[in-house]
Amino acid sequence: MKPRTDAEHQERMRKLKVAQDRKIASKTIEKGLIIVHTGTGKGKTSAALGMVVRAIGHGMKVGVIQFVKGAMQTGEKAVFDRFPDFVEFKPMGEGFTWDTQDRSRDIAVARAAWDEVKRMIADPSYHMVVADELNIVLRYDYLPVDEVLAVLANKPAMTHVIITGRNAPQPLIDAADLVTDMTQVKHPFREQNVKAQRGIEF
Amino acid sequence: MKPRTDAEHQERMRKLKVAQDRKIASKTIEKGLIIVHTGTGKGKTSAALGMVVRAIGHGMKVGVIQFVKGAMQTGEKAVFDRFPDFVEFKPMGEGFTWDTQDRSRDIAVARAAWDEVKRMIADPSYHMVVADELNIVLRYDYLPVDEVLAVLANKPAMTHVIITGRNAPQPLIDAADLVTDMTQVKHPFREQNVKAQRGIEF
Repeated sequence: MKPRTDAEHQERMRKLKVAQDRKIASKTIEKGLIIVHTGTGKGKTSAALGMVVRAIGHGMKVGVIQFVKGAMQTGEKAVFDRFPDFVEFKPMGEGFTWDTQDRSRDIAVARAAWDEVKRMIADPSYHMVVADELNIVLRYDYLPVDEVLAVLANKPAMTHVIITGRNAPQPLIDAADLVTDMTQVKHPFREQNVKAQRGIEF
Repeated sequence: MKPRTDAEHQERMRKLKVAQDRKIASKTIEKGLIIVHTGTGKGKTSAALGMVVRAIGHGMKVGVIQFVKGAMQTGEKAVFDRFPDFVEFKPMGEGFTWDTQDRSRDIAVARAAWDEVKRMIADPSYHMVVADELNIVLRYDYLPVDEVLAVLANKPAMTHVIITGRNAPQPLIDAADLVTDMTQVKHPFREQNVKAQRGIEF
């Protein structure tokens, strides 16, 4: 499979370059994407944070609403709070359902967080809006998925919306442009009793 | 499946909380993790960048070596360059194999990048080292995987090492603590001819 000489390699790569250039030239569309990170593996929120970093590095305005994480001081919040002109980072959750143990309160918290997401999406000055762990809220029927779909259908054309959390509902996947399933291959919580660590989970 | 009353919800969550607390109490180990992000979907590098954000937000020192990305000005570089005391961010690549068309030069570039990764891993003042797209270099046999495994086997106990790129070799997966396969469900390059966009891909 591998070329035997450097000259063969060069010739093969020259041809590949032509094909790649043609492929890139065919991709001309720019649009605000609906992005979903789901699956049981690690990386859903981290990958959203990575895109936030990229966006603010280009001077784009970003809003991040966290539906589950609350008052806990995270590394991401410490960094993003250094860029107040570019990113509004709001952990609006109160923890997991088993922490609050209060369904009506969970619903009210989800509703308040969703209202913030809606406000940001409606405002075209935001280039990117992250609804972190929204899928969990949808999974518990704390918000109707139809309401989320209606907002996405009417978002400004160039706004990117990133939605994270396991168990993304199929109608949301259908509406999305870019969907990645973070598939767990190995996880040290499960296999080695490693705890949540700074820099990795928060 | 869903509880009918708020009281039932509360009772169920109370029990779940006991189980969750027991589970968390069993996880006591802290260690530097070998983390691999692989798969054909989007999010491998983004998720690594998200962990870099978390780490520097906690004052940890991070090194990032990019094996493919080169001189191109990215959003992530613009942000991380604002934190020179915490993150050393080095795009050391010269593009894809079809850009360079020169195997011996690709190998020399991979070797230089790997030397930097080795230096950072050997220095315990780095809490996290990211080898971005190292898997691609391994895939092309530009570096022997055994050399990478030897360095990982001797890394300082608390250093996290994150390796990204599709086609992670099985021996690397075997050596890792945390492996996520970013599985492509939908991608707008492929399906909608959307181009690479600021804030999303760079």
